[in-house]
Amino acid sequence: MSLEFILEETAGRARKGRLSTPHAEIQTPVFMPVGTVASVKAVPQETLEELGAQIILGNTYHLYLRPGVETVRRMGGLHGFMSWNRAILTDSGGFQVFSLSELRKLNEEGVTFRSHLDGSSHFFSPESATEAQIGLGADIIMAFDECTEYPADQTRMRASMELTARWAARSKKYFEEHKHEVPWKSRQPSAASIQERQVTDSTPNAGTSGESGGTDCWPLPPDPSATQSLFGIVQGGMDRALRKESAERTIEIGFPGYAIGGLSVGEPRELTREIVESTLEHLPKDKPRYLMGVGTPDEIVEYAGLGVDMMDCVLPTRAARHGLLFTSEGKVSIKQARYAQDQEPLDPNCDCRVCRRYSRAYLRHLYASNEVLAQVLNTIHNLSFYLDTMRRVRHSISLGEESRFLSGIWSRSKP
Amino acid sequence: MSLEFILEETAGRARKGRLSTPHAEIQTPVFMPVGTVASVKAVPQETLEELGAQIILGNTYHLYLRPGVETVRRMGGLHGFMSWNRAILTDSGGFQVFSLSELRKLNEEGVTFRSHLDGSSHFFSPESATEAQIGLGADIIMAFDECTEYPADQTRMRASMELTARWAARSKKYFEEHKHEVPWKSRQPSAASIQERQVTDSTPNAGTSGESGGTDCWPLPPDPSATQSLFGIVQGGMDRALRKESAERTIEIGFPGYAIGGLSVGEPRELTREIVESTLEHLPKDKPRYLMGVGTPDEIVEYAGLGVDMMDCVLPTRAARHGLLFTSEGKVSIKQARYAQDQEPLDPNCDCRVCRRYSRAYLRHLYASNEVLAQVLNTIHNLSFYLDTMRRVRHSISLGEESRFLSGIWSRSKP
Repeated sequence: MSLEFILEETAGRARKGRLSTPHAEIQTPVFMPVGTVASVKAVPQETLEELGAQIILGNTYHLYLRPGVETVRRMGGLHGFMSWNRAILTDSGGFQVFSLSELRKLNEEGVTFRSHLDGSSHFFSPESATEAQIGLGADIIMAFDECTEYPADQTRMRASMELTARWAARSKKYFEEHKHEVPWKSRQPSAASIQERQVTDSTPNAGTSGESGGTDCWPLPPDPSATQSLFGIVQGGMDRALRKESAERTIEIGFPGYAIGGLSVGEPRELTREIVESTLEHLPKDKPRYLMGVGTPDEIVEYAGLGVDMMDCVLPTRAARHGLLFTSEGKVSIKQARYAQDQEPLDPNCDCRVCRRYSRAYLRHLYASNEVLAQVLNTIHNLSFYLDTMRRVRHSISLGEESRFLSGIWSRSKP
Repeated sequence: MSLEFILEETAGRARKGRLSTPHAEIQTPVFMPVGTVASVKAVPQETLEELGAQIILGNTYHLYLRPGVETVRRMGGLHGFMSWNRAILTDSGGFQVFSLSELRKLNEEGVTFRSHLDGSSHFFSPESATEAQIGLGADIIMAFDECTEYPADQTRMRASMELTARWAARSKKYFEEHKHEVPWKSRQPSAASIQERQVTDSTPNAGTSGESGGTDCWPLPPDPSATQSLFGIVQGGMDRALRKESAERTIEIGFPGYAIGGLSVGEPRELTREIVESTLEHLPKDKPRYLMGVGTPDEIVEYAGLGVDMMDCVLPTRAARHGLLFTSEGKVSIKQARYAQDQEPLDPNCDCRVCRRYSRAYLRHLYASNEVLAQVLNTIHNLSFYLDTMRRVRHSISLGEESRFLSGIWSRSKP
């Protein structure tokens, strides 16, 4: 069993489910913290476990450049390399090639790009990007797509969508031919991993609050025949008809899960919602649906309400490093002088380790003094807030409270 | 009871004791991690507890400039401000004024200096530096001294030593007149501190291995009449006779503990040892002896062997941030390419959370990629190594194994 998705409950369009991957079972809807180069910036893996993170995301583009796929593959993939035994998803590298690299040159075959690190030249195709993702060994990997820029005209949106469809078929073909090369099986447990297992076995997953955060099947997946799962990506720009066509063509190729890509690229939020809503209508109900690169706390609640099962975004971690904190009472810019002598916890309704122990005055001082600990504590809180938000969303779906789910959660702590 | 020092065991010149301070009891010899601006860089306070840190050091110069003494005082002192309920020591600010600030002007009264942050002008005297330290509220504070530069001629060393002696008398006079202004008693427990206490009560101090890391007497000291304790500092440059005279004059003023300052300022290590050894002969055996700003792992073992009870140094934390790690097998520069695919733990003889979980390859990758987590994990390991080293020193003194203590501990893991 490489992937199994069980829909447990629905409330309106919102769905609560269980997604079983080789390394862990995931409660959906789920928010996936971004760990670009095999680290969710500033936070140790044991703290991510404590926070109840069920699945994290790695960026293929970054990992391919540094430390390189071969290094990770030899360590048994990302799970062994970073000592993380819950689920991992990697993106295809497509989005970063288009947004970060210089002098890219695209043709039918793939895309030539220069590293943003050292200017060296590289080539990604559906085949090579899939090969890289097999070497990285995440539980879920993504088809290589072109992320259409915004704005784009009708001709450009159609051409880009059609290229993504052809690349999806090539990604799948390569994956089916090579999926048994995943490095999980060849991995020898190292001293570190054995010690880690002992630690994990004796450490309660405090943050999961009764929800299993994973089956802790370290170091080998439970089923020796398990492989990764490749998800398809729907593109089509901001055109509903093209999105529908992209969904149909991607479904025709056939994937165990479908992502909506190419959103949150500068368009107005109403347009994002419109495209998400219309695209979801064309995706199969029995497969997980992943909305890529989204969003703010209220957006992740909103899209879960529309029937999205998986989301990821750098916002909680990146904002934390800039002193922007999400709380039940709204956003807090901790650098402000008004917090300099504020003895209260950051969020009185949060029970993360930061809010349990430290005052706003102390967090403000750490940020103003450019202390590394500011990045650590701010990131822990923001991730806790996001993961707790999704926990409440799942709980609300269980209770079947659709209206409260859509309108009540986000403002739950306001008077 | 503001301070009590009980010598429990000796092995040669080495001493094992218990130092009771208002906030915690400390097992000596002790290494004190440096938390310059109320943060041991990159490490949350709960991790310091886990590592078994018994007492940390704050820098008065930095805290005076940012966030300012008044802010800290209103939070009940450093303990309340940074949510740390074990012991704290602050230095007098003298060393930083001389090493960090610009355009300093010194006279009998004190020293005028410009902030290294914004160039603003400030004045420290024995009285104002002591006042600042009372506001910061550490358990142990230091007399305001002049750190003699190296090299210095005989006239300069004598003049500097005599100034320090006069300043010590003034520091003590001010302290005796104002010690009851310590902000502990006026502090109202905040929501954060109450929650913190609940957390502390249910969290085992995993790292202390049976040694009590503190009495957790939060938020108020157990004895309402307890005050801070002011330690004197012996100066005298690299001249043994001047050091003897400085010790005698400082003892004549009378303090509950004595520090040796003005070392590790560029002199050869043999000279440091010679001055430490000769100065210790002139210090009372029944009082704690604090060697300031020292040292490498083998130095802290060596000086504990000579009879030093307390030491502090930025080396483990600063080196960690530069990828220099201390292990039972020697120093490791984790940036080296030789570790890129090394699956072993950093130190096979260390059971810190870093060595239990992560490989050298992963630590090397984090450092090479300039990830914040590199600073976090490297610092945790180095502090663990230092604190564990001192734990072994204390254990060896208990066993009375002087020769093994002096020569065996440092090389304990070598074949």
